[in-house]
Amino acid sequence: MKNLIKVGFRNLLFRIFAVQIFTKVFMQTPQKIAVVGSGLVGTLLAIYLKRAGHTVHVFDRSPDIRTVEFSGRSINLVMSNRGWKALEDVGLDEEIRKIGIPVDKRAIHLQDGKLNYQYYGKEGEAIFSLSRGVLNRKMVDLAEAEGVEFFFERKIWDVTLATATLWEGETEQGEWTELKYDKVFGADGAFSRIRHRMQRQSMFDYSQEFMKIGYKELHIPANADGSPKIDIHSLHIWPRGNFMLMGLANLDNSFTCTLFMPIEGENSFESLTNEEKLVSFFATYFPDTKDVIPDLVRDFFRNPNSYLAIMKCFPWTFNDKIALIGDSAHAIVPFYGHGMNAGFEDITILNELMQQYGDDWDRIFKAYEISRKPNADAIAELSRRNFEEMSAKTVDTNFLLQKKIEKWFSDKHPEKWMPLYSRVTFSLQPYSEAMAIGDFQNEIMQEVLKMDNIQENWNSEEVENKILELLK
Amino acid sequence: MKNLIKVGFRNLLFRIFAVQIFTKVFMQTPQKIAVVGSGLVGTLLAIYLKRAGHTVHVFDRSPDIRTVEFSGRSINLVMSNRGWKALEDVGLDEEIRKIGIPVDKRAIHLQDGKLNYQYYGKEGEAIFSLSRGVLNRKMVDLAEAEGVEFFFERKIWDVTLATATLWEGETEQGEWTELKYDKVFGADGAFSRIRHRMQRQSMFDYSQEFMKIGYKELHIPANADGSPKIDIHSLHIWPRGNFMLMGLANLDNSFTCTLFMPIEGENSFESLTNEEKLVSFFATYFPDTKDVIPDLVRDFFRNPNSYLAIMKCFPWTFNDKIALIGDSAHAIVPFYGHGMNAGFEDITILNELMQQYGDDWDRIFKAYEISRKPNADAIAELSRRNFEEMSAKTVDTNFLLQKKIEKWFSDKHPEKWMPLYSRVTFSLQPYSEAMAIGDFQNEIMQEVLKMDNIQENWNSEEVENKILELLK
Repeated sequence: MKNLIKVGFRNLLFRIFAVQIFTKVFMQTPQKIAVVGSGLVGTLLAIYLKRAGHTVHVFDRSPDIRTVEFSGRSINLVMSNRGWKALEDVGLDEEIRKIGIPVDKRAIHLQDGKLNYQYYGKEGEAIFSLSRGVLNRKMVDLAEAEGVEFFFERKIWDVTLATATLWEGETEQGEWTELKYDKVFGADGAFSRIRHRMQRQSMFDYSQEFMKIGYKELHIPANADGSPKIDIHSLHIWPRGNFMLMGLANLDNSFTCTLFMPIEGENSFESLTNEEKLVSFFATYFPDTKDVIPDLVRDFFRNPNSYLAIMKCFPWTFNDKIALIGDSAHAIVPFYGHGMNAGFEDITILNELMQQYGDDWDRIFKAYEISRKPNADAIAELSRRNFEEMSAKTVDTNFLLQKKIEKWFSDKHPEKWMPLYSRVTFSLQPYSEAMAIGDFQNEIMQEVLKMDNIQENWNSEEVENKILELLK
Repeated sequence: MKNLIKVGFRNLLFRIFAVQIFTKVFMQTPQKIAVVGSGLVGTLLAIYLKRAGHTVHVFDRSPDIRTVEFSGRSINLVMSNRGWKALEDVGLDEEIRKIGIPVDKRAIHLQDGKLNYQYYGKEGEAIFSLSRGVLNRKMVDLAEAEGVEFFFERKIWDVTLATATLWEGETEQGEWTELKYDKVFGADGAFSRIRHRMQRQSMFDYSQEFMKIGYKELHIPANADGSPKIDIHSLHIWPRGNFMLMGLANLDNSFTCTLFMPIEGENSFESLTNEEKLVSFFATYFPDTKDVIPDLVRDFFRNPNSYLAIMKCFPWTFNDKIALIGDSAHAIVPFYGHGMNAGFEDITILNELMQQYGDDWDRIFKAYEISRKPNADAIAELSRRNFEEMSAKTVDTNFLLQKKIEKWFSDKHPEKWMPLYSRVTFSLQPYSEAMAIGDFQNEIMQEVLKMDNIQENWNSEEVENKILELLK
């Protein structure tokens, strides 16, 4: 395990160095490529493919997102280093940074109204809050400007894997038209049609698992003078054990809030059946939201309940013809804020492999899925665990002491200890390594927390030596 | 855990007692019920439903199995107590026993040609070898005799869950006919179309996982005089670590053999590319099969490679309209010989609940899936583990010693120790309890195996006391 840490750091250095090498997209022999799905990953991938010299068609069954109202079922996104890296490599990071808001800490709202701040990383380290809809519109604009062609309200029902042929039509049972490509990317999300076809092949591993927790979008508007009602540079959390409310700022100083709560049981979506129960529930558990969520009742009963699923599969590719990318290959829960970041990192790795292997798409696809699969599994697991961290541990004394010791030790020995959150969010270290090292660090911290009088002696030489010893 | 063992025994007694109560199928208010799939579970379920007073239509996309040649990709079945129980309750066990061959032991073929026997249970305890095809034909006959109506070569492509409507047609993209029922059972196997529709609902958990091991059917004919070439009352295993050959007798004294082997790598299906390699491989690893598998080369290259998958899902039902049963709800690997037994036990439990709740199908279905799911998961896990037991542990000295001690202690204290295999195969204890108790027993045995000179003292009073102590 100590070796793993060393390897971890070496890899980290390699990847930081790699940023220097791979700042361009290399040209390939032009192909006709279809991307199914015009979401964040689909649009960014389309830009990369276009830059590499290909003809790129993006299909989406929905209307152009630039022409529609948002759905009321969104969770704001956070962009962190992995996401930025993928944008930087095609020079689009500055453009996107303009529509994001830096968030450098958690603001923990206790039930008695007190507020605690927990910084995410070192000074200057921040994640960026972005409205999914605003970002997606921007990405479509950028892709169009590159010459990517979009085909909205075009329903792809099936794909012939061996020939990269899409089957498009008005209805699943109606007439279909054949659309022949050299290559098809399925960027069509957790319920991917492209994956659906792959799934019916022998030797295709697949799982979908729904959480017992659902979510609902709520809204904190800006003040009448345009100022925000709460700090925009914080990710706000109201942690209440097995449920929580969170909020992330929008550009107009409003906040998109998300209530995560069990679907059934006590304090569940099922239990909040009328206005009276809802208002009383919020008054009990989230008293300080009374003045900031004015349309609670309307939003709660108008906005849909949404569900959370973890989807895993393998393989992600079929010969040199088909590849899954983003949520269609690995849908995760949103509690680490890494769904988009993981999808964008898929593109970074794919692009690195396109540079490494040129036109050998067989090899590119094979290396891509082998490289990404363990990392997708790791961020899936880390995201699942983070619900408990956000909703319960952020107010747990032992956990807060652990974080404090880690921060102190990490400041003293930055080369020996990078906290898990920083590895995941502020580094490009592969997720699977970050998780393995994080698990090892956690074992060490459990030993440290057992030391006598650790509450008082948390920053003593004894503790420092103990950690150094355990790290050996 | 000690309490669990007690509960285990209590449950066991309850279930033995229950056999006395539930020997009949009670009448319900007649409904029109479709069973999709005319396999073993579909046909037996149809008989139960017919006996309960319903109109029962069984659909299958394949031709009537009584009219076709067998496929050359079968693994012989073993019927054990759970399977017999489901047949007994409708008085069909005697009929089926006639086409089975009792098997009371494993015959372990060592690489040097030596043969060891390992008995499965106590004297008189045996599993029954059955040809899948022969049994299936018999079951269709029996169901038809009951008045069940069969519709062969009728392809069901989809189902409307809320109204129990089947959609039938020649091709998936062609015209479909609507077939309206009161209730639909999906007994259509691991790749169930009925489940396929349920899977596209929100909150449906699903996983499919393919093993890296495939299998191939081979054949040991009877001698010219009709006598068997090897003992028919044994399940023959040639355990070779990560691959193995096994054989089970047919009624005509021939044997259906199955070669289980990795798909890729050293000693894999991929590596046996020609006759020379195949013959040399068998000469090295299975020298004693030379005289008994005369058509090895023909069979190996003619019969298809088959794959093994574990499929899990939940829920298994939709309102009072749809239920999955057998492999469509829980496909497992064949290494414990419990695929059919688990499916038949689904029917036993369903029937018990039909008796308990009368016409309240909502309640029947809800109780059915809640009761069966943990047991299906347990036999899936036990079956997965059993590959290693069969292919490697059956020749492991420590493992054999463990079995010997267990047998000795169990004979001395039958009320305190029933080995896992017996719980699973010769009892009706729920699989999940059997597994939990088996895991606990295994922990005890690991402690016992650490005792000094255990090889010599395995049946000493010291060992007996140690186990009694650990059981407390």
